[in-house]
Amino acid sequence: MHPALLIAAADVPALRQGLTRYPLLEKSYAALRKTADKALASPIVVPVPKDPAGGYTHEQHTRNYYAMQAAGISYQMTRDVKYARFVRDMLLEYSKLIPTLKNHPEAKSSSPGRLFHQALNDCNWVVYSIQGYDAVYETLTPAERTKIENGAFRPLCNFFTQDLKPWFDLVHNHGVWAAAAVGMTGYALHDDKLINLALHGSAGTDKSGFLAQLNGLFSPEGYYTEGPYYSRYALSPFFMFAQAIDNNQPALKIFQYRDKILQKALNSSLQLTNNDGRYYPLNDALKEKDWTTQELVGAISIAAEHYGVDPTMLGVVQLQKKVLVSAGGLEVAKALQAAGKNLPEFQRVSQVYRDGATGAEGGLAVLRTGPQTDQTSLLFKYTAHGLSHGHYDKLGIVLYDKGREVLQDYGAVRFLNVEAKEGGRYLPETHSFASQTVAHNTLVVDEASNFGGREKEAEEHSGKAWFASIANARVQVASAKADDAYPGVAMQRTVALFTDSLSQKPLVLDVLRAQSATEHQYDLPFYYQGQLISTSFAYDRPANQQPLGPKNGYQHLWREAVGKPVRTPGVATLTWLSGPQFYSMTTATDTATHLVMARIGANDPKFNLRPEPVLLVREKAKNQVFASVIEAHGEFNPTAETAAGSHSNVRSVAVLYDGADATVVEVQLARGGTYRLAIANQDAAPGASHEVRVAGQPLRWQGPYVFRHF
Amino acid sequence: MHPALLIAAADVPALRQGLTRYPLLEKSYAALRKTADKALASPIVVPVPKDPAGGYTHEQHTRNYYAMQAAGISYQMTRDVKYARFVRDMLLEYSKLIPTLKNHPEAKSSSPGRLFHQALNDCNWVVYSIQGYDAVYETLTPAERTKIENGAFRPLCNFFTQDLKPWFDLVHNHGVWAAAAVGMTGYALHDDKLINLALHGSAGTDKSGFLAQLNGLFSPEGYYTEGPYYSRYALSPFFMFAQAIDNNQPALKIFQYRDKILQKALNSSLQLTNNDGRYYPLNDALKEKDWTTQELVGAISIAAEHYGVDPTMLGVVQLQKKVLVSAGGLEVAKALQAAGKNLPEFQRVSQVYRDGATGAEGGLAVLRTGPQTDQTSLLFKYTAHGLSHGHYDKLGIVLYDKGREVLQDYGAVRFLNVEAKEGGRYLPETHSFASQTVAHNTLVVDEASNFGGREKEAEEHSGKAWFASIANARVQVASAKADDAYPGVAMQRTVALFTDSLSQKPLVLDVLRAQSATEHQYDLPFYYQGQLISTSFAYDRPANQQPLGPKNGYQHLWREAVGKPVRTPGVATLTWLSGPQFYSMTTATDTATHLVMARIGANDPKFNLRPEPVLLVREKAKNQVFASVIEAHGEFNPTAETAAGSHSNVRSVAVLYDGADATVVEVQLARGGTYRLAIANQDAAPGASHEVRVAGQPLRWQGPYVFRHF
Repeated sequence: MHPALLIAAADVPALRQGLTRYPLLEKSYAALRKTADKALASPIVVPVPKDPAGGYTHEQHTRNYYAMQAAGISYQMTRDVKYARFVRDMLLEYSKLIPTLKNHPEAKSSSPGRLFHQALNDCNWVVYSIQGYDAVYETLTPAERTKIENGAFRPLCNFFTQDLKPWFDLVHNHGVWAAAAVGMTGYALHDDKLINLALHGSAGTDKSGFLAQLNGLFSPEGYYTEGPYYSRYALSPFFMFAQAIDNNQPALKIFQYRDKILQKALNSSLQLTNNDGRYYPLNDALKEKDWTTQELVGAISIAAEHYGVDPTMLGVVQLQKKVLVSAGGLEVAKALQAAGKNLPEFQRVSQVYRDGATGAEGGLAVLRTGPQTDQTSLLFKYTAHGLSHGHYDKLGIVLYDKGREVLQDYGAVRFLNVEAKEGGRYLPETHSFASQTVAHNTLVVDEASNFGGREKEAEEHSGKAWFASIANARVQVASAKADDAYPGVAMQRTVALFTDSLSQKPLVLDVLRAQSATEHQYDLPFYYQGQLISTSFAYDRPANQQPLGPKNGYQHLWREAVGKPVRTPGVATLTWLSGPQFYSMTTATDTATHLVMARIGANDPKFNLRPEPVLLVREKAKNQVFASVIEAHGEFNPTAETAAGSHSNVRSVAVLYDGADATVVEVQLARGGTYRLAIANQDAAPGASHEVRVAGQPLRWQGPYVFRHF
Repeated sequence: MHPALLIAAADVPALRQGLTRYPLLEKSYAALRKTADKALASPIVVPVPKDPAGGYTHEQHTRNYYAMQAAGISYQMTRDVKYARFVRDMLLEYSKLIPTLKNHPEAKSSSPGRLFHQALNDCNWVVYSIQGYDAVYETLTPAERTKIENGAFRPLCNFFTQDLKPWFDLVHNHGVWAAAAVGMTGYALHDDKLINLALHGSAGTDKSGFLAQLNGLFSPEGYYTEGPYYSRYALSPFFMFAQAIDNNQPALKIFQYRDKILQKALNSSLQLTNNDGRYYPLNDALKEKDWTTQELVGAISIAAEHYGVDPTMLGVVQLQKKVLVSAGGLEVAKALQAAGKNLPEFQRVSQVYRDGATGAEGGLAVLRTGPQTDQTSLLFKYTAHGLSHGHYDKLGIVLYDKGREVLQDYGAVRFLNVEAKEGGRYLPETHSFASQTVAHNTLVVDEASNFGGREKEAEEHSGKAWFASIANARVQVASAKADDAYPGVAMQRTVALFTDSLSQKPLVLDVLRAQSATEHQYDLPFYYQGQLISTSFAYDRPANQQPLGPKNGYQHLWREAVGKPVRTPGVATLTWLSGPQFYSMTTATDTATHLVMARIGANDPKFNLRPEPVLLVREKAKNQVFASVIEAHGEFNPTAETAAGSHSNVRSVAVLYDGADATVVEVQLARGGTYRLAIANQDAAPGASHEVRVAGQPLRWQGPYVFRHF
């Protein structure tokens, strides 16, 4: 029976009826039909591949696959054969072109494409075009089918599974797209060989293929190992192929697989967005991407069919203004209409995600507090490396105030699909800067990146969760270690997000402890976002600017100023303004602390980088504890011409005790009293008792930490 | 009769009734009453002045004057004597404090204040406090009145008119505030001497004072000589004092004065905002300021009383969410309610403003095209200097696409009311960078500013309108000259905003002609806003960064890269991305053209500047014509993952003819044909005939210019 990929033949009558009842379904279909009609009104153009992403042939082939998918659905909804003829005619053109193709002239990676510069886009082409083919299959003569299958789909599937076999077997988002392309083709062509390759990998042993990908790419909580931005991208083939599997092999119970891992994957993907719905830009990522993206439209609709409609996602659907034209999309459109204006709010919550298939490869702690509309969110990343798009950012933090970046992750250096920026590819500075350790809010030892910047080595080690406590909204604490990122240097970072009754916003206390037998230069960067307002410390600002270092990302930072070490230990505060809000970072200093002010943009021949600032706290030591507080304060309102509270409320941050057993840090606020955080360094067992002497007095506690207010 | 300043006693019954009928009036009053009630619930605190702007005593005295104004109105609306007592008690405190004061300890200007660091704020204090006093006047005993008048208001008025007499007599926004303070006090105290000082200046000859200000600060079209940002600020005392005059001396017909100059002033102030309602940042200005500002609430309400409600301003009122609690505010609230949801849109139109009292001091051309929601706006400034807040930007241009800056004016370097930024004052870089010629999109000769950066000299010369034609929305052209800004260099700039049927947005053709008997270095900066995407020219980017020059603003620019001169004349294009839109600037080049890429931020010890880019087109010549096109093109949509049209559509820009009589420039578009602009350089008479030879052919036209499409 056809269709049987995203839409099953049995769904069609209900879908047609739904079009007349549920406005969002109708609107979603109308958009597809408009795409189809527009394509039908133009001549069929199937150009010889030539241009990189953003260029003409790239865009034309992309338009074509969307047009074929849209025409296929339009045919199923209307039974108007003009749509079927369009798909047929275009696929016949492709069946003439594809057998003539060698690798794309702009191909530069190890996985070249034929229609596009990379095989990934060829997979996209198959995933969408095969839906068109499947939808009009019944209208085609056997001869036409043979031509199309042998001329277009089989050659590409053979190319993926044979020519690019190692790539096809990757447990990686490309691999998921490849599996979906091959598997969906297998169902449409009734080709068990293709289906098995897709499901079980080229060796048929489930070391690769779709099941291996479901097993290997998500943690038990559904955290996608490449990070939030790629989770969104991978969800698309995961859900589309799963839907096709379920329509053809329901006995596989693919949506129940691994304790409903696909549901968890969707939930964690939605959770890992900031308060504006934009994906957290961990690892290679573009900051503009948000949860209205097309991939999530499909995932939410498909998930609704198999897990029921989640009412807290309806608000997202409303922003997306779209559903999939499928049985699941029908359910979502129906639920949205029934809900009317009373849409329950999507709840972003604190959560500790483990990484790795078994959850043993570190993780990501997301600490959140405040109402949904005014939430402070702190990310603490001690995951595995994250495959080829991973960054060397062990123990990095990122801080948001609502959707506003307070301490940013740079993301990737890329202008998606902008032809003039290397065809929209990742730019060289993604590797030379954005992925390097110094591009993140985490410790850099001796101006090198974690694992020497070697991906293979980085893949072998993850951070290690030490403890986390997120149950109390007023004080959330997470701690993790990384002992492998730098040879001979043990690192532990502990972050606390806490509310103080006299402070308008939550505060972050950040304690990063480095231990080594030998002396190192330790740099702790804080990529604050905004305009510098004031510093508590004096600095030299030279008249000329030089790069901060020769390599490992330092070559991309302009050295703007260097703060002078102070005579007595104390604190250094840097205050900045972002939108209507002042922020300060206050860090404990000693007589050796150098405060380095720098700006991104050096050695950037094509002006690919954004000129954003960073403060590096620099120490030379064997053992060092960096203790810092980040706070929001005051308000700047240029319309009302008021500005208040432009000074930090932190009077001091100090390390009161540091030993192999424990570290104790104290924060004194100018208003709001004093806080102490004691951290167990060697025994994080909940029942373990700890005692250290602080200022001559014993400090006792049980469990991995204690946080007290005086 | 009291009250008789912003509210006349006779207005009170209708206002009270209006509160129950017109929600916006009620809401506006409720906010005032809340301010009053909050103040009444706290102890009266009148601290000894100590802090600069943003600091505690500054903010407290500001709160106090707003509280007294609010309590005065609350008393009039309720007749509850608690409000009257509050005003009385606070003014009695001030009457004890003020006589003890010397100049403010933080005073740094030549017009120091007593309660505040500058006299301007003391005037603000009087203007608001006197309204409170006036409102509760009838409740006070003669002894109380004497204490308050002699202790608080007279000493400050004497201070302004005697100690600061030269300042009081300034025809300048400070002078308007001073006149309003003294004049409103005069009416409240029934003191003709103060009234006359305020109206006619300290010499009583109308060389200074309010009438002189009405005569001198506005052009015949209502353009305020200090520029849009200060128009907004000055409108407040202009309208408040005018209202007080009208309530006390209606025979003066102040709202009819100078052919209703106040109405024209308000209209031009609203017109000189970008499509987001933000004031164009010409001269010293903060970019955040928009037309919802409090000053315009008052001006719109007062104008409505005297000129009738302008329905196209009701949309602004709706954004302001406020009216004045006055007879005019009542009219506005009534009109808004009557209009319901059908508010006519405010219409920003093309307009040529003359500058100077008689319109003889140059002007500002505002060329606009497109629907109100998608308007392109080009400002061309050849005004007088603009008093102490003026910038050295003769013949400067600024370009907007909707509310988005395409070619920016930097504005001023200031963080309003931010205590940590020098108390919120103008920062030194306002003078050393933002006001200098090189900080603007206009010609810099020999790395110096117009008039050697000397304000006195700059005040003596304005730009000169040459011609302007704004009647045809598809082609608008303006031309102006400036022969005094640089000794021995005559400058003429002509800008055309035109639409091309195959281009998605209007284009700007910019022709700047410099003529001199001796060779000069000519720099033409373009402060493009956004991320550089590509350049058509090669450049050297050194590994280290140095300031572009030693002074006149050049010291604040980092030299990022220098484009190499080309072997054959042609064009250089720079493309950038801002939000969803690509833009390009394409300029004609010859074998001597250097393209200098720079960024703001050098020699900025306190990090006061924003790190924004600029492209300088540099020539060494006696006579030079810079011909450039600025265009919007393509679209970047990261959510849909599409990017199209990232390449400029301009194939060439060339000067076909340049002579004493005329200049002819040609633009060839890759799509859309060829345009020629011929400009008469010596005779701009509408009837004059011109003929030049272009490429061997005669080109004939009549009038100051011709613009043709091939």
